[in-house]
Amino acid sequence: MQFGNPNDTICALSTPEGVGALAIIRISGPEALTVLKPYFKKDLSKVDTHTVHYGAIKDGDVWIDEVVLSVFKGPRSFTGQDTVELTCHGSPYIRQRILQLLIENGCRMAEPGEYSMRAFMNGKVDLSQAEAIADLIASSSQAAHKLAMNQMRGQFSRKINELREKLIHFASLIELELDFSEEDVEFADRNELRTLVVEIQGVVRELMASFATGNAIKNGVPVAILGAPNMGKSTLLNALLGDERAIVSSIAGTTRDTIEDETVIEGVRFRFIDTAGIRETVDEIETIGIDRAWDKAQKAQIVLYLVEAATMDEARVKENLDELRSRVGSDAKVYLLINKVDQITDPAQAKALAADFKNAYLISAAHGTGLDDLKKTLAEEARSLQNEGSDVVVTNIRHYEALANTNKALDGVLHGLESRITGDFLAIDIRRALHHLGEITGEITTDDLLGNIFSKFCIGK
Amino acid sequence: MQFGNPNDTICALSTPEGVGALAIIRISGPEALTVLKPYFKKDLSKVDTHTVHYGAIKDGDVWIDEVVLSVFKGPRSFTGQDTVELTCHGSPYIRQRILQLLIENGCRMAEPGEYSMRAFMNGKVDLSQAEAIADLIASSSQAAHKLAMNQMRGQFSRKINELREKLIHFASLIELELDFSEEDVEFADRNELRTLVVEIQGVVRELMASFATGNAIKNGVPVAILGAPNMGKSTLLNALLGDERAIVSSIAGTTRDTIEDETVIEGVRFRFIDTAGIRETVDEIETIGIDRAWDKAQKAQIVLYLVEAATMDEARVKENLDELRSRVGSDAKVYLLINKVDQITDPAQAKALAADFKNAYLISAAHGTGLDDLKKTLAEEARSLQNEGSDVVVTNIRHYEALANTNKALDGVLHGLESRITGDFLAIDIRRALHHLGEITGEITTDDLLGNIFSKFCIGK
Repeated sequence: MQFGNPNDTICALSTPEGVGALAIIRISGPEALTVLKPYFKKDLSKVDTHTVHYGAIKDGDVWIDEVVLSVFKGPRSFTGQDTVELTCHGSPYIRQRILQLLIENGCRMAEPGEYSMRAFMNGKVDLSQAEAIADLIASSSQAAHKLAMNQMRGQFSRKINELREKLIHFASLIELELDFSEEDVEFADRNELRTLVVEIQGVVRELMASFATGNAIKNGVPVAILGAPNMGKSTLLNALLGDERAIVSSIAGTTRDTIEDETVIEGVRFRFIDTAGIRETVDEIETIGIDRAWDKAQKAQIVLYLVEAATMDEARVKENLDELRSRVGSDAKVYLLINKVDQITDPAQAKALAADFKNAYLISAAHGTGLDDLKKTLAEEARSLQNEGSDVVVTNIRHYEALANTNKALDGVLHGLESRITGDFLAIDIRRALHHLGEITGEITTDDLLGNIFSKFCIGK
Repeated sequence: MQFGNPNDTICALSTPEGVGALAIIRISGPEALTVLKPYFKKDLSKVDTHTVHYGAIKDGDVWIDEVVLSVFKGPRSFTGQDTVELTCHGSPYIRQRILQLLIENGCRMAEPGEYSMRAFMNGKVDLSQAEAIADLIASSSQAAHKLAMNQMRGQFSRKINELREKLIHFASLIELELDFSEEDVEFADRNELRTLVVEIQGVVRELMASFATGNAIKNGVPVAILGAPNMGKSTLLNALLGDERAIVSSIAGTTRDTIEDETVIEGVRFRFIDTAGIRETVDEIETIGIDRAWDKAQKAQIVLYLVEAATMDEARVKENLDELRSRVGSDAKVYLLINKVDQITDPAQAKALAADFKNAYLISAAHGTGLDDLKKTLAEEARSLQNEGSDVVVTNIRHYEALANTNKALDGVLHGLESRITGDFLAIDIRRALHHLGEITGEITTDDLLGNIFSKFCIGK
């Protein structure tokens, strides 16, 4: 176990560091209601749950602060244990002194994610819900917030549990057969099992497919900007980032690809992928056939191919676009951006440049021309890529992997049914599928897995 | 009035910005218990005061967050008004959405210090106590915290009010005389008044004298490091700052002189005063007679005069020290630091350098030699400068000015008594003294004064 004793009473600052009017120190564990006894006049073990109490925290005669204590008696608390939330003035000195007093009286500092870990251990939330709390805190766009909220409310877990229960029913029938294996009976109808597995696999695959969307919502819709040097790539990027330039969250656990920059346009988070690699090896204007740039473009949901109005060679651009479209695949959308259009003085001539192309935009990144239209298109495109119909979307790579493993195990079940293998072999694959589904909600866990998940949380959560 | 309508219901984030597990949004005003009605299932106007309530904040069907609401019904709240403290997850997106919902339903954003302003207006705290809250939040050393805490608990206010009450008693007798002025009676015994004024003035002057200490505790004990270039001033400063280098608070309202750097040594905050000016005009080694450096040295409570072991001219150093001591006055302590002692290979020779001086330290700033002793001495010296006996210490320049004005008015009273002026003239000076004492606790205020004080608070306080 990578976490400390769950019977320790733990404490930590749960509000951000820094100076503010107020701060919250959270105390959870068997001694939560008594640990403040030497410092607070009221006996919290005698008060009602869900009440707040105002008074001084004193170390002997020394007044540390006037605080408000909110008392939550287990199991009616976040962790399921007795919990006190201490609201003090937001001075670093006061916070530190109060934590010191708590530790002197037997508390220990909480490890990252330890409150959520206890909530999971005490059955207050399942694993996917606990993970959603971290996502909820880190979410900085409406769409990401909605997904995390749905997951925290258990919608994803319910879907997974439905699948598990159906599969468990069959698993138990098959296990029953094993008990009677010498009598060669079949309690589990093989055709029904086949239908069920195909149905479950359909849902599993749908959830797996939603990960591209979920990941895009959580981490930003990946957009690759391609183009030869001096086409205005950086200028365009800066113009798109503009005032809405996002503060990239530094929360542990929100792992990302190497990214160039992020911004939110009309409530949608975009992640602009670095294609700078193209510069190092380019030897001809408008050549984009560089493997590294391709790789990145292939990970993008939207590709912006940037050329210069004054120097563009239409035939060459068409060639490149065709190659681009064929290589990035049908899922991604490719746009042609004809930049520096301000250098073409005749508007008719400028318009003609775009006329022969599908999805072409005349822009001037430096002067802002055409960028509002482009942004609107990007936002609309992103929204249409994000299947708004479904509330249950996979956002977590761990869940995606568990689903992929489930899918593989179900393949094994189907294969086994086709080759008419015996129940004991079928049972192995069914159990494997159940195992991987159970990993998602935490029915099946290992200490390593838990340690890995919760250690990425912030302290105080 | 520089503040908004006190009958508005106001809301603001009261915990620091940034991402954390939890955040508090504070709501205060007549609608505090009803403004969440469209978004929260429970009717807070029907619950008991000092209770906490868990549930979802929903905008129609959209779940924003699961929150805990602490209900404080006026007058049993910080502001004296109905107040709700909403604890949500510490995501910037969630905080912003909840504040938006509150504002859509009739709240407005609180101005800086508006909660404390309401607490003052509703008689929950006096002005000096409200100011102490800001100091308490900003305090980063034990001594500063203790002073702010004492002030917040009203010890300073009580002292001021004692003085005021005594003076008010006499003022009323004198005013009574004025009503009977044609009868030439004296209700107020002039000798008693004289004794009282002298007594009050004694306390006022004592409080004024404590400001040097109070200011030193709050903003750091001022230490000037003087010395010619290349004596190792910067090296010494860096060595003293070391790992304990302080984060300088950026709270509005903690105005400071131009400072070089701050650090806390053994729980005492020190403020090292920039004497860089000496470099620009120096034309001879060990010449320290530069006016600008003198000015700064004169503001210091401790002066460190730095020379180099290998090149020091004892006679010259003595001369400079004598001049230094005579110019900085008897309140400040002057130390001679003989630096780069490592360049003297013979320990006896090194020791001899210091032998002829009082308060001389052999150090090597670069190698750390002698610095522990120096730090210990600085901390001891600071503590002896800070009169530990008195709990009531003036830390606020506004209070100091009010006390100085009180003192001046009391001078006027004494002068009037001596020159046997009539009661009506005495009354003017007594009223003036009362006015200035009343400014401290806020018995006497102007809108400008209040605006000036509270606008320096942080938002959410």
